[in-house]
Amino acid sequence: MRICVINPNTTSSMTELMAEVARSAAAPDTEIVAVTSSMGPASIESHYDEALSVPGLLSAIMADRASTRRSDAYLIACFGDPGLDAAREVACAPVLGIAQAAMHLAVLSGGGFSVVTTLSRTVSRAEELTHRYGVAGLCRGVHACDIPVLELESNPDTEAILIDACARALAGDGSESVVLGCGGMADLAARISAKIGAPVIDGVAAGVRLLEALVPIGGFPGPASGEFARPPVNDYTGLLSGFALTTQR
Amino acid sequence: MRICVINPNTTSSMTELMAEVARSAAAPDTEIVAVTSSMGPASIESHYDEALSVPGLLSAIMADRASTRRSDAYLIACFGDPGLDAAREVACAPVLGIAQAAMHLAVLSGGGFSVVTTLSRTVSRAEELTHRYGVAGLCRGVHACDIPVLELESNPDTEAILIDACARALAGDGSESVVLGCGGMADLAARISAKIGAPVIDGVAAGVRLLEALVPIGGFPGPASGEFARPPVNDYTGLLSGFALTTQR
Amino acid sequence: MRICVINPNTTSSMTELMAEVARSAAAPDTEIVAVTSSMGPASIESHYDEALSVPGLLSAIMADRASTRRSDAYLIACFGDPGLDAAREVACAPVLGIAQAAMHLAVLSGGGFSVVTTLSRTVSRAEELTHRYGVAGLCRGVHACDIPVLELESNPDTEAILIDACARALAGDGSESVVLGCGGMADLAARISAKIGAPVIDGVAAGVRLLEALVPIGGFPGPASGEFARPPVNDYTGLLSGFALTTQR
Amino acid sequence: MRICVINPNTTSSMTELMAEVARSAAAPDTEIVAVTSSMGPASIESHYDEALSVPGLLSAIMADRASTRRSDAYLIACFGDPGLDAAREVACAPVLGIAQAAMHLAVLSGGGFSVVTTLSRTVSRAEELTHRYGVAGLCRGVHACDIPVLELESNPDTEAILIDACARALAGDGSESVVLGCGGMADLAARISAKIGAPVIDGVAAGVRLLEALVPIGGFPGPASGEFARPPVNDYTGLLSGFALTTQR
Amino acid sequence: MRICVINPNTTSSMTELMAEVARSAAAPDTEIVAVTSSMGPASIESHYDEALSVPGLLSAIMADRASTRRSDAYLIACFGDPGLDAAREVACAPVLGIAQAAMHLAVLSGGGFSVVTTLSRTVSRAEELTHRYGVAGLCRGVHACDIPVLELESNPDTEAILIDACARALAGDGSESVVLGCGGMADLAARISAKIGAPVIDGVAAGVRLLEALVPIGGFPGPASGEFARPPVNDYTGLLSGFALTTQR
Amino acid sequence: MRICVINPNTTSSMTELMAEVARSAAAPDTEIVAVTSSMGPASIESHYDEALSVPGLLSAIMADRASTRRSDAYLIACFGDPGLDAAREVACAPVLGIAQAAMHLAVLSGGGFSVVTTLSRTVSRAEELTHRYGVAGLCRGVHACDIPVLELESNPDTEAILIDACARALAGDGSESVVLGCGGMADLAARISAKIGAPVIDGVAAGVRLLEALVPIGGFPGPASGEFARPPVNDYTGLLSGFALTTQR
Repeated sequence: MRICVINPNTTSSMTELMAEVARSAAAPDTEIVAVTSSMGPASIESHYDEALSVPGLLSAIMADRASTRRSDAYLIACFGDPGLDAAREVACAPVLGIAQAAMHLAVLSGGGFSVVTTLSRTVSRAEELTHRYGVAGLCRGVHACDIPVLELESNPDTEAILIDACARALAGDGSESVVLGCGGMADLAARISAKIGAPVIDGVAAGVRLLEALVPIGGFPGPASGEFARPPVNDYTGLLSGFALTTQR
Repeated sequence: MRICVINPNTTSSMTELMAEVARSAAAPDTEIVAVTSSMGPASIESHYDEALSVPGLLSAIMADRASTRRSDAYLIACFGDPGLDAAREVACAPVLGIAQAAMHLAVLSGGGFSVVTTLSRTVSRAEELTHRYGVAGLCRGVHACDIPVLELESNPDTEAILIDACARALAGDGSESVVLGCGGMADLAARISAKIGAPVIDGVAAGVRLLEALVPIGGFPGPASGEFARPPVNDYTGLLSGFALTTQR
Repeated sequence: MRICVINPNTTSSMTELMAEVARSAAAPDTEIVAVTSSMGPASIESHYDEALSVPGLLSAIMADRASTRRSDAYLIACFGDPGLDAAREVACAPVLGIAQAAMHLAVLSGGGFSVVTTLSRTVSRAEELTHRYGVAGLCRGVHACDIPVLELESNPDTEAILIDACARALAGDGSESVVLGCGGMADLAARISAKIGAPVIDGVAAGVRLLEALVPIGGFPGPASGEFARPPVNDYTGLLSGFALTTQR
Repeated sequence: MRICVINPNTTSSMTELMAEVARSAAAPDTEIVAVTSSMGPASIESHYDEALSVPGLLSAIMADRASTRRSDAYLIACFGDPGLDAAREVACAPVLGIAQAAMHLAVLSGGGFSVVTTLSRTVSRAEELTHRYGVAGLCRGVHACDIPVLELESNPDTEAILIDACARALAGDGSESVVLGCGGMADLAARISAKIGAPVIDGVAAGVRLLEALVPIGGFPGPASGEFARPPVNDYTGLLSGFALTTQR
Repeated sequence: MRICVINPNTTSSMTELMAEVARSAAAPDTEIVAVTSSMGPASIESHYDEALSVPGLLSAIMADRASTRRSDAYLIACFGDPGLDAAREVACAPVLGIAQAAMHLAVLSGGGFSVVTTLSRTVSRAEELTHRYGVAGLCRGVHACDIPVLELESNPDTEAILIDACARALAGDGSESVVLGCGGMADLAARISAKIGAPVIDGVAAGVRLLEALVPIGGFPGPASGEFARPPVNDYTGLLSGFALTTQR
Repeated sequence: MRICVINPNTTSSMTELMAEVARSAAAPDTEIVAVTSSMGPASIESHYDEALSVPGLLSAIMADRASTRRSDAYLIACFGDPGLDAAREVACAPVLGIAQAAMHLAVLSGGGFSVVTTLSRTVSRAEELTHRYGVAGLCRGVHACDIPVLELESNPDTEAILIDACARALAGDGSESVVLGCGGMADLAARISAKIGAPVIDGVAAGVRLLEALVPIGGFPGPASGEFARPPVNDYTGLLSGFALTTQR
């Protein structure tokens, strides 16, 4: 199986960090292809950044589909899950976002969960996703650690701050597990879990394993007339003229 | 007051149709500026089209903000309300989508409502929006009339088909009103209403009037640290490098 | 257009205050007719008061319908929205309550909102209305300022108390806007907004503008057999014998 | 124990029918006092009628409170449960509506239930009550039998029509029980149940028995500062001047 | 009427305590039969205990059904309501759990309620039940008093601790009533209510009275093909071979 | 990794069928241990059967925990997910039910889904689970194929009936995928999927793969004081005396 992990921001060091986590999580016969978006924002910290990360994400999926070695599934490696529905339409294969993956594994691990995210302005977005994914009833709190995405790697205190934030969320919310609310925290999940004595769920590893669970089901992309069937052919112009779909799949 | 109506697809005849409806709906001292997206899909009939209409939409808003005569409010004239949250962040002014506007006026007009949209693949998207906007409990049905967006104008039977679809929705769903699920149907609302004897709500007129209600409230864009505060400055690269925000507003 | 603003309590100074706000909010060609209820409680501060404000409200609507110059729409100017469904049946025209109007404009202005109301015993009623109107998911808190309705005008500290209560609600709830929970606060919205730096929404102005948006839709009162069709003729006796409807509209 | 059953319409034959059902349902040591409203509509078949039945209902409760032999609990014997919250404030004792009573006993009897009501225009009101009372998830359908309230007694086919409607609702909805949606059907519950082989729940008997369950709990009317505490004293004028509360209880 | 109160744990002193409360609550012509489970846990303080209390509960019901003097209704006297759906299938008569009974009477008594339970690990279970029973919207808080079930009787401070916990819950949650979250607290309800000035609801008394309300409805066990119809005959083996049902009822 | 698949009914041929599916689904280095319950019902076709399958299930888990080679995770292979919460408490490791697993993978595969189950009396149970797992909003229908569990293997028409039922559910509900509502259908998922052109999800394979995703997260069983912490030690008597837990884990 071949899983394409797409970092929808343009920061390749973050792609590498997530690729490493993805490879550690993957089964031996799963190949991880990690792609950095070729256009758009360097990090995703607003609705604006998120919306403008979508063309790069879709471009990466279509490049993969057009290649001689198509992937079997796609992971959108940003906690806002940008472009998920659009990606499903063009991927003709399972697609997950890392927020979706992490939140589903949290509820499957049992009981209530907390989310620890980066900046406080992303709290509302995470809460909105809990509603979208049907897990709001088990989400006991969303907390910001107030480290910007691109400082997660360089800030020497990141691990300590996250351990503290996760421990407080767990106790204060009465939760059974914690979800890490940014792909850039993916490498820290195991160490935080060991410290706080509870499952700590990173969406990158979660997403890879869930895609490994989805691909063998087969039958994708589903009914020919359904919501996620191949989009109708359409004219595209201007800066985005290269996004026009042709009839061939 | 100056309201900027943005058609997020690139078909200018549709912009003109909607501009005319917007002007008819607007108060005498409201100026309507209608803009056609400069990039992306000619019509929006899939999640893919919708996602790729967002850069053109945001570009139009930012061009308006950079002009000497900024608008006071913005209307996203596509029934999927693409890019709504991102648009709010950069507009620093009220922004509505036409689905949101039409659905809110429908529930304010009293009782349950039905939606009549274009293609059946857009039904799920409309249903999802009813949940997002808190009106799902009063939405009694979403129905497709199976006319593609760009044929609405040219198809000689559009009006008859829509009258029939709206009348059947009203009776079959036991609804009190009907929402038209595409900006390209905007000019037909009054004639359909007269035929079926119930309010028929088009989002373009609805949106203009609701923005006229929102602008005088003042206080936009709200708290400086809130979800919709100005996005942090960020690097943008590749095809979308022009979308980088500078600190000046 | 002619909008009839009905104060369902019997305190005419409050009617005048709200009429002034309504006229400021209305379009130049909108005529505001303000009516004080001719019977019932002097202020509405309990479920009991609210229930007994309804006959006076309905009487005012029917007097307007029977006049030579019928209004085109009706606004119920009490934050509990008493008699809304009944008013719709007899008005044969759009009817809104000020809680409904303010709450819908709050969610349309974007993000979560807080409510600041008068006495703490009315908090539950406001919360119930957020559920009724489908906005509970975005209502982040309802707070009492503990000033009785009829003291709002005379208390020299009203403005300062409200500014403080709104500022604390905004920050404490992480809201994007504040709804004022009493018609008697209507004249203070703009000043509070300027102080707290966020939209502050008063239901009287909100209601007038939303009715201006609803009237042009046409098609009211909707389907002849619907929930809001003209009530069946019925015998009325005793103190309320004057409320019998005749078949003529 | 003394339970006051109040018919909020002015038709005394219906009060008698319901009083008989209430007495059959009551425990040997429960006294039933049945009161017909002294003002308002002869039957309740619209939101308008329902709103205008409330003063008569509240008047009846207050007359009972002022008498030398106060009742211990109150039953509002109309399926729309008019004036429930206001009645609680002035009764200082348990108060139920017959829709509330019947719906709660339906879910306590196990599984999903259907409602069979009178006119189709009351269907939406019954559905709204299922949401208000938290039983919407178990209400599998609301159906009209299309007999006006005041014809239930005189129409020779009432029983046959109701048996048919209940049997079809039970089978079509896959329900476990049926709720009768009008106090005027109260005497038929047992015969319909025998025919259709499932619990058929009438709100009058249900309400009497639930009040017998509530009264012994004690502690009413609850906290002195709560939502249902005694209303503040207020001026009342005009036709309703007699409704002013004095401080004495 | 004969009501069988089943204590699903094996501690007979607790059965006696609950039997006394049940007899005090019952009507003069209601006979209370109290049964202690013949197998399983001595108290129910985990999901594990609760699951393993079900065979003893079902065994008690079937023994009653097989006796010459069958009961007319059954009360499951543990606040987790173990085995409720299964009990309904074999009882062919109304069955309630004490959590269900108490929570329904709480909402019928008016306004929001709080729950005071034993150990903090049972809080989540109580919250889950509020969702199952449709009363989550009115449950303002679930609080543990941290006394283990079997110490409730022997701990000399139980009453004082519960009075304090209930008073704080009432004030802190802004509730109108309090539900006691364990059958072992049943005898204290009246004394706590007198102290805190609000209804305090114990599920044992509540359950007896609600079953007295359900039995006269008749029509149980409902439709022959329904969810709660007699289970199909099935082979049972091993330790539980005695649980095989025969066709005779 | 070692996953223990427990068939909570006593029919070993069904265990074998499910073990084969589990082994096909598992990663090469995952060992599947399949266990047939040693007590209780031969099939699970009622709430009664389901409740009485729990002791055998828990017994199997505890036997595994007491063995020298403990499993790393447990799968409850009955579509009602009996005993899930209790199993989590004693397993100290991830536990899933096959309904839970299948429903989560269905929503992760994208869009709405239908369920095709065995007997119509199990439809309500499946619907209840969709609410419990937060997927009710995406479940477009639950349908019975009316084949009893133990006839699934022997009935020569099972495959044809299921293909037909799944195809009709997919089209009629407008779903994107189908969930098979019984462990005894597990071996047919791939063939049905090929026929109907959409993902068909069997809970046994789904559960194995999801447990493979959960185990590496670590941190189980979570916080020492949480809802799923080891149950307190308790006395057990009678037929179930062997279920007493000792302090050693």
